[in-house]
Amino acid sequence: MKPTITLEYCPKCNWLLRSAWMAQELLTTFADELHGVLLHPSDTSGRFTVWVDGRELFDRKAAGRFPDIKELKQLVRDAVAPGKSLGHSDRPA
Amino acid sequence: MKPTITLEYCPKCNWLLRSAWMAQELLTTFADELHGVLLHPSDTSGRFTVWVDGRELFDRKAAGRFPDIKELKQLVRDAVAPGKSLGHSDRPA
Repeated sequence: MKPTITLEYCPKCNWLLRSAWMAQELLTTFADELHGVLLHPSDTSGRFTVWVDGRELFDRKAAGRFPDIKELKQLVRDAVAPGKSLGHSDRPA
Repeated sequence: MKPTITLEYCPKCNWLLRSAWMAQELLTTFADELHGVLLHPSDTSGRFTVWVDGRELFDRKAAGRFPDIKELKQLVRDAVAPGKSLGHSDRPA
């Protein structure tokens, strides 16, 4: 089965909109590689964590920031489609 | 565990945008009642189906149309939070 990305976000921080945006970016870039993207409102305030199936890919508190979309796509690519080129998203920032 | 809504959509029909919009509407209205909303690109062309966990709630081909957002919220409410009032979304169209 194809992998599922989970975007766990803090709803009370109003992070649904940016999470839904990131979900659409990932589903546009990885339409063929993903089973789907789950938008999951967190019970933990201030949390924004990206998972691939059960594995953590990125955590806002650990990184001290949100992921840049290019960075997030590279992390997801490395996890679900290592050989896939991301075109301009692969060039250094 | 709280229920998960799955929005299965046809990516080649360009239905990601409307599906992501519906996901945000459901996550705004049912932030406390849902584990999350899964955006799931379908392998079947022309498909748009709404599931609650494993149960089908709405199917575009069967209905011959997309769900109105008020209708979708009432269907989800009846499935996951029967007692919950939807305010103006509860008044007849």
